[in-house]
Amino acid sequence: MRKAFNSVIQVRACVLEPRGWGPCSAWTRRLTHSCSALVYRWHGAHSDVVRMEELPLPAVGQNSVRLKMLAAPVNPADINMVQGTYPILPPFPAIGGNEGVGEVVEVGSGITSLSLGDWVIPVDAGFGTWRTEAVCDADDLITVPKDISLLGAATIGVNPCTAYRMLQDFVHLRPGNTVIQNGANSAVGQAVIQIAAAMGVKTINIIRDRPNRWELVEELKSMGADYVVTEEDLQSSEMEKIFKDVPKPKLGLNCVGGQSAGLLLSHLDNGATLVTYGGMAKKPLPLPAKFLIFKNINLRGFWMTQWKRNNREDLTLLQSMVGALSGLVRSGQLSPSPCVQVPFSLYRQALEATVSSHQRKHILLM
Amino acid sequence: MRKAFNSVIQVRACVLEPRGWGPCSAWTRRLTHSCSALVYRWHGAHSDVVRMEELPLPAVGQNSVRLKMLAAPVNPADINMVQGTYPILPPFPAIGGNEGVGEVVEVGSGITSLSLGDWVIPVDAGFGTWRTEAVCDADDLITVPKDISLLGAATIGVNPCTAYRMLQDFVHLRPGNTVIQNGANSAVGQAVIQIAAAMGVKTINIIRDRPNRWELVEELKSMGADYVVTEEDLQSSEMEKIFKDVPKPKLGLNCVGGQSAGLLLSHLDNGATLVTYGGMAKKPLPLPAKFLIFKNINLRGFWMTQWKRNNREDLTLLQSMVGALSGLVRSGQLSPSPCVQVPFSLYRQALEATVSSHQRKHILLM
Repeated sequence: MRKAFNSVIQVRACVLEPRGWGPCSAWTRRLTHSCSALVYRWHGAHSDVVRMEELPLPAVGQNSVRLKMLAAPVNPADINMVQGTYPILPPFPAIGGNEGVGEVVEVGSGITSLSLGDWVIPVDAGFGTWRTEAVCDADDLITVPKDISLLGAATIGVNPCTAYRMLQDFVHLRPGNTVIQNGANSAVGQAVIQIAAAMGVKTINIIRDRPNRWELVEELKSMGADYVVTEEDLQSSEMEKIFKDVPKPKLGLNCVGGQSAGLLLSHLDNGATLVTYGGMAKKPLPLPAKFLIFKNINLRGFWMTQWKRNNREDLTLLQSMVGALSGLVRSGQLSPSPCVQVPFSLYRQALEATVSSHQRKHILLM
Repeated sequence: MRKAFNSVIQVRACVLEPRGWGPCSAWTRRLTHSCSALVYRWHGAHSDVVRMEELPLPAVGQNSVRLKMLAAPVNPADINMVQGTYPILPPFPAIGGNEGVGEVVEVGSGITSLSLGDWVIPVDAGFGTWRTEAVCDADDLITVPKDISLLGAATIGVNPCTAYRMLQDFVHLRPGNTVIQNGANSAVGQAVIQIAAAMGVKTINIIRDRPNRWELVEELKSMGADYVVTEEDLQSSEMEKIFKDVPKPKLGLNCVGGQSAGLLLSHLDNGATLVTYGGMAKKPLPLPAKFLIFKNINLRGFWMTQWKRNNREDLTLLQSMVGALSGLVRSGQLSPSPCVQVPFSLYRQALEATVSSHQRKHILLM
């Protein structure tokens, strides 16, 4: 059972601050450390509301740990949270950032699951990863192997997990089956290509036409994409050629919406499932009744944040997924998306770049 | 597993005719009876292509029966089949009609499941019910109790079955739960109202505004409809009032599509399922990504014809559903849709009336 979803959910923030900073701390208030953090106290444009502040940290209690943040991405969803347009919003004052990797530097006396030096990532959205240090419950973290790259660890918890779950949870895919996706050049799309290739599943990858199209086609093929087509190709004989070689897709993945998703829909196999996880075109998918009635297409949605909450009580599923993905990173089958590393002090550039272009992920280095 | 669906499926016709009439008869060709039937030999407007013909019937074999058709509806899908626009089409020459009730008048020596005098309805679409008599495999028929009305028996196999399955197969509904549907005045819609009421499930029923609106509202309420609203009401405070009294719907039923279905979608509960079984507006449903991603709405389709084929090998599920629905008819909880009875010889009027208006079902009496 999925938990009920309200249009705006207040997240349980792990901002642990002196009195007046919210209800979440039950720990001793011996202030022994402080951290730099990107704080916002109301919603608005990031340039207007996000400020770097020096914040005191509470002492580590019996069941908590202190971690030094090593790297944290700036994702579009983080910006939407700052703007107040995302469906979950942390209480004010809030620290930005939902994803990132930290190193455990102090461990409460009651903790056995984490050790000094462990790399950890947050379990839930709303952690507030844009800071140099944090103190939080050990239960709010899971470990990541230290033998993968720092950037791989910092970016493993959202996009590769989204790709992994969508390939696992909706259709039983076997080697030789086909998946079709739009937005194939997105971070999730690239993870889909690589994870599907590791599963022996064929991918048909839809991109928008662009001046450097063939460069991108080659890049995606080098990751394991079987076919890379444009939205125009979806209406041409190109698709017939492809379906002479591979079966029609049992699974479609849609992060675009609008006409693009409508075209994708028309190429699905009978009884297939279309999973929507984004709506970049900001237009509704036009859904003709015939696909539902006569082709028995099933339309579902996926939201990683909700999945993590649904599985909050038993972290073994999340930990085992991160383990499996780390294995793919280690073996070279899954590479982190191209990214730009930015010193923490230059955070304004990283935030601005994320708003103006989604091409490369910006990673803050603490 | 659902069987694969092709864009046009050739149905296994039960037209049993002399050589040259198709491949389906393995029976002895002693011709002992004949029947009148509404035959078409190519697709087109019903007035151009459907003709009453006198056809010879094969003798009854060991595993077959002869039945006298008593009553058969003219449904919009029958007309679409004649036009060649329906996704399943019988081979030519074809006899029209997919639904109806017959009485067994001759039984093959190997048959134990049927007796003389039994009322029977076809298991599958494409039977060709617009005829006075038929000879077919006993396996192509199931029985209907004779203590319900003839019109109830003639119309039980498609629309009430559609309503029943949609209320049973997608969401586990409990008394007090809510279902919302558009096209509430359709034959399926009226069956939904009555079956849901018998289940203790609340219904919110959407109709188009019309001059005799309050008359229709009262009619649907007398069937058990809890709320009857117009498409305009869906955008007004009317819905807030309703949701003070009943929970948000876990199940939505859509036979309209277009903006109407989009409005219906916005009133579903988180995690609800929208089942589409028709597209009367002939416009795609505009589907915003947020309903899939953040409200976890699941969109499915339902087609009674396919369901019957999926369950073709084991008829107990179909027989028990017809038994349950007959029970509701017997107890007065489910009434056949209003219908006009037309003598078989006046079939042209019945076909024409079905094309020009869907308000009342036209039933051919043989």
